[in-house]
Amino acid sequence: MAEVKSDISIARAAKKKPIQEVGAKIGIPSEHLLPYGHDKAKVSADFIKSVQKNKDGKLILVTAINPTPAGEGKTTTTVGLGDGLNRIGKKAVICIREASLGPNFGMKGGAAGGGYAQVVPMDDMNLHFTGDFHAITSAHNLLSALLDNHIYWGNELGIDTRRVVWRRVMDMNDRALREIVVSLGGVANGYPREAGFDITVASEVMAILCLAKDLKDLEKRLGDIIVAYKRDKSPVFARELKAHRAMAVLLKDAIQPNLVQTLENNPAFVHGGPFANIAHGCNSVMATTTALKLGEYVVTEAGFGADLGAEKFFDIKCRKAGLKPAAAVIVATVRAMKMNGGVKKEDLGPENVEAVKKGCPNLGRHIENVHQFGVPVVVAINHFYSDTDAEIAALKAYVKEQGAEAILCKHWAHGSAGIEELAKKVVEIAEGGASQFAPLYGDDLGLFDKIDTIVKRIYRGSEAIADKSIRDQLHQWEKQGYGNLPVCMAKTQYSFSTDPNLRGAPTGHTVPVREVRLAAGAGFVVAICGEIMTMPGLPSKPSSENIHLDDNGDIEGLS
Amino acid sequence: MAEVKSDISIARAAKKKPIQEVGAKIGIPSEHLLPYGHDKAKVSADFIKSVQKNKDGKLILVTAINPTPAGEGKTTTTVGLGDGLNRIGKKAVICIREASLGPNFGMKGGAAGGGYAQVVPMDDMNLHFTGDFHAITSAHNLLSALLDNHIYWGNELGIDTRRVVWRRVMDMNDRALREIVVSLGGVANGYPREAGFDITVASEVMAILCLAKDLKDLEKRLGDIIVAYKRDKSPVFARELKAHRAMAVLLKDAIQPNLVQTLENNPAFVHGGPFANIAHGCNSVMATTTALKLGEYVVTEAGFGADLGAEKFFDIKCRKAGLKPAAAVIVATVRAMKMNGGVKKEDLGPENVEAVKKGCPNLGRHIENVHQFGVPVVVAINHFYSDTDAEIAALKAYVKEQGAEAILCKHWAHGSAGIEELAKKVVEIAEGGASQFAPLYGDDLGLFDKIDTIVKRIYRGSEAIADKSIRDQLHQWEKQGYGNLPVCMAKTQYSFSTDPNLRGAPTGHTVPVREVRLAAGAGFVVAICGEIMTMPGLPSKPSSENIHLDDNGDIEGLS
Repeated sequence: MAEVKSDISIARAAKKKPIQEVGAKIGIPSEHLLPYGHDKAKVSADFIKSVQKNKDGKLILVTAINPTPAGEGKTTTTVGLGDGLNRIGKKAVICIREASLGPNFGMKGGAAGGGYAQVVPMDDMNLHFTGDFHAITSAHNLLSALLDNHIYWGNELGIDTRRVVWRRVMDMNDRALREIVVSLGGVANGYPREAGFDITVASEVMAILCLAKDLKDLEKRLGDIIVAYKRDKSPVFARELKAHRAMAVLLKDAIQPNLVQTLENNPAFVHGGPFANIAHGCNSVMATTTALKLGEYVVTEAGFGADLGAEKFFDIKCRKAGLKPAAAVIVATVRAMKMNGGVKKEDLGPENVEAVKKGCPNLGRHIENVHQFGVPVVVAINHFYSDTDAEIAALKAYVKEQGAEAILCKHWAHGSAGIEELAKKVVEIAEGGASQFAPLYGDDLGLFDKIDTIVKRIYRGSEAIADKSIRDQLHQWEKQGYGNLPVCMAKTQYSFSTDPNLRGAPTGHTVPVREVRLAAGAGFVVAICGEIMTMPGLPSKPSSENIHLDDNGDIEGLS
Repeated sequence: MAEVKSDISIARAAKKKPIQEVGAKIGIPSEHLLPYGHDKAKVSADFIKSVQKNKDGKLILVTAINPTPAGEGKTTTTVGLGDGLNRIGKKAVICIREASLGPNFGMKGGAAGGGYAQVVPMDDMNLHFTGDFHAITSAHNLLSALLDNHIYWGNELGIDTRRVVWRRVMDMNDRALREIVVSLGGVANGYPREAGFDITVASEVMAILCLAKDLKDLEKRLGDIIVAYKRDKSPVFARELKAHRAMAVLLKDAIQPNLVQTLENNPAFVHGGPFANIAHGCNSVMATTTALKLGEYVVTEAGFGADLGAEKFFDIKCRKAGLKPAAAVIVATVRAMKMNGGVKKEDLGPENVEAVKKGCPNLGRHIENVHQFGVPVVVAINHFYSDTDAEIAALKAYVKEQGAEAILCKHWAHGSAGIEELAKKVVEIAEGGASQFAPLYGDDLGLFDKIDTIVKRIYRGSEAIADKSIRDQLHQWEKQGYGNLPVCMAKTQYSFSTDPNLRGAPTGHTVPVREVRLAAGAGFVVAICGEIMTMPGLPSKPSSENIHLDDNGDIEGLS
């Protein structure tokens, strides 16, 4: 076996092309690329306007089984498939999310793929990149400052200061800011009240940026944000604070998609990064719709496993943006099947065909679920060195029984050469035109019934349950005109149930809804089913201790 | 009189050149310019290294009388002089500070000059620009998070949680964050304590970035930051939290100078922006020293009037970076002289030669003060339409009596054509070689004596006074090895005294030192003489209400 190189050493050895050349591959003239350094660029609004009459390419979703500590490689497969499609002569564009800066200093590694299926420049993408998240932080916190400022100067709108729902954000893992008291220190500093910070990716502004069709739509949605309630429980909007237009100014560049390249110099849009629990977990609509105008194929991914990620991709992003996915790739690994079959991480080494078979129903259910949306499925087995032929055969056989095909992919080790077969299969499915995409539920179903539908048909639980106060809240929102919104489920990503340790394909569980939140600007109702952390902390030995510049000024320790 | 155009309409009509052409004027090859869009770029570290053996150009400081509500136009004159020097055939580079984002949404206008003496792109420079301030915010807050995280996980270093001195920062005017309590909510969130936010420009990280000679020096200084004290009052350093190296990674790009252009396409470095009260108020050492290697002339400015700005420029920046200014331009206006002579702002219209004469001693003292540093002076009269010939003549005559020359400058209305005479005079002085620059005091003078020296020789007060506790603190720092640092005065910019309403040239006042702070990373001791606000608030009608995008996507209301 050859020496295994680290992701960062592979990334650093990449022969990057000037970003203008990468843009030229998909017809973007260099004057419409706003460069950030020599290897990153934003695509101009004028250019995006100019291609609106182009025919759309085919949209491929990469999703996965429920994540396990064994690792599935969803982003790696997304990047690999994009390269693979280019390799077989299709003009393909990759669309993935941007990484959050804060978690890199805790324990998280990068989010740009791995091995020989990566997007570069990895360092920049894990740090400030093109500044989008900083712009979101600024826009969010401007609204926060304007809100407290309004109260300070006399509270003309009659905000109930006990019912301020708009927090502040920072792109940092800082648990000390989760719950704070602000405006201490007397009359010059305002009216003390409880407040707190979330991490930037949890901001509704992030979700809005990722769902907005254009700058005008962005501004409208920012105005629709509910920041607080009055004594009569009627909402107070960002628009009433006259905040939304200045926020749009701060986001003017951030909303333009970022173009980078894969290790094989193929185009990738890396844009937006909403949380996959309290938000919808997909890259931006602007990036996806632009990519569809420029490429024959667009390969994108959604956060977490298919129960959360694909469902939200279909029911929120595709519904709202009018997208029609042509096929879905579900990423699985032999190791993850074994963990779903009850094997512990430390025992994954030896061959265990029985465990693979035992774990397969988790994958089987995801296949069934995606089929419910009318989208054809192919399974990508992301190969690990330790996989045995018998294990792979067992996994393939299982998928065949489900009416789909599983294809072994070696893009991590071999780049596009290792994923040609999957690329060809994806083209066959997409060009076959079998997809008949439709969301799971209609807009006019009641909010609680939407939740219940997802619980029954996707999670295969017996029912969704909720206290009367939560049902009342949902009814109130329906009366206020928000009943047509889709729901955004916030649930553990590790299981179909709300118990993260319950792997495989459980049935019959109830799903308790603990809390509901209205994201009126983003356009969804969040149903929180379990503990959801919106401001992470740092571990006792944060990875920041090892992140440093070497003598050449190169970054070490980032991934 | 021709129609007066707004700064922003002039800026928007500018015929900008590609930034590569601007860089080429001073010998920067395009591969060493990291572009941010087509009109902004960072200069690469490699290029800066490669020019270290070049001969230095001549450094010209632009400073001013004490600011008045009439406006003096220091940045406008800095930009105009740079253009003027280029016009008369000198290769000149401008070095000014970056603008802070937050205050733009309150009431402050931009900071890129005015009229026909501006730096562009103005919009970007007042918003995210190249992301430097966001990077500083991230680096600062990473240290804050690591500090609380260290306490959370057991406080191995024995930090006295009552003596945490490192706050958090945000680039926003948000008074609600001035005084807060963090880590509420129980054991998972940590140990509640009082904390607070400053605006980013007040961060010691900003001062460090602006004083660092290179990336290595930056990292060392970040490690030297004192974040808290132990029970025995010994300091806890950022280095002990293993934070400084990751902070340097976050600042890797931010430390590289930003190149933009004037309306006349001349090169300008716009880099760094430390507060002019609790910090030294100058653009970065990296930008200034790089500009000196590339231009025959470098025109730069310092915050506030000469009593604060020029003194800190000479005693902190020039001392630490080994800079030798060749000349200083003191900007004055007829209107400001009249205000110093007792005229109210609303009465500035009619001619009032007596008031001009009465106000001149403020200017006279600044001339004397700059001469104390061995630096020759020329006065720039920044022309306003309302100035009368008699008023201008009175001002010129006064300056002549002080052994200097005052030159009428019309760069605001006419660009470089209006400031040729000043440019020629500056060249005459600089090439005459009369400057014999030396700081006001030696490194080895005691800390309190340094303060007292500034009070007596620059402010012309009778003495500096301070409680025993403050003097004891200064002595303790001297014992700990910080006695050789310069002092950074934080005092009202409106008067030589600590009373902002006392214009003109007062004498005999005492200057009480209320508080002292040690900025061990930046390398100075701050002496606070009066109320210093490090987190501004928003007014009752914030300017954000008018900031918006027009139908072309252009920003309106920013300045």
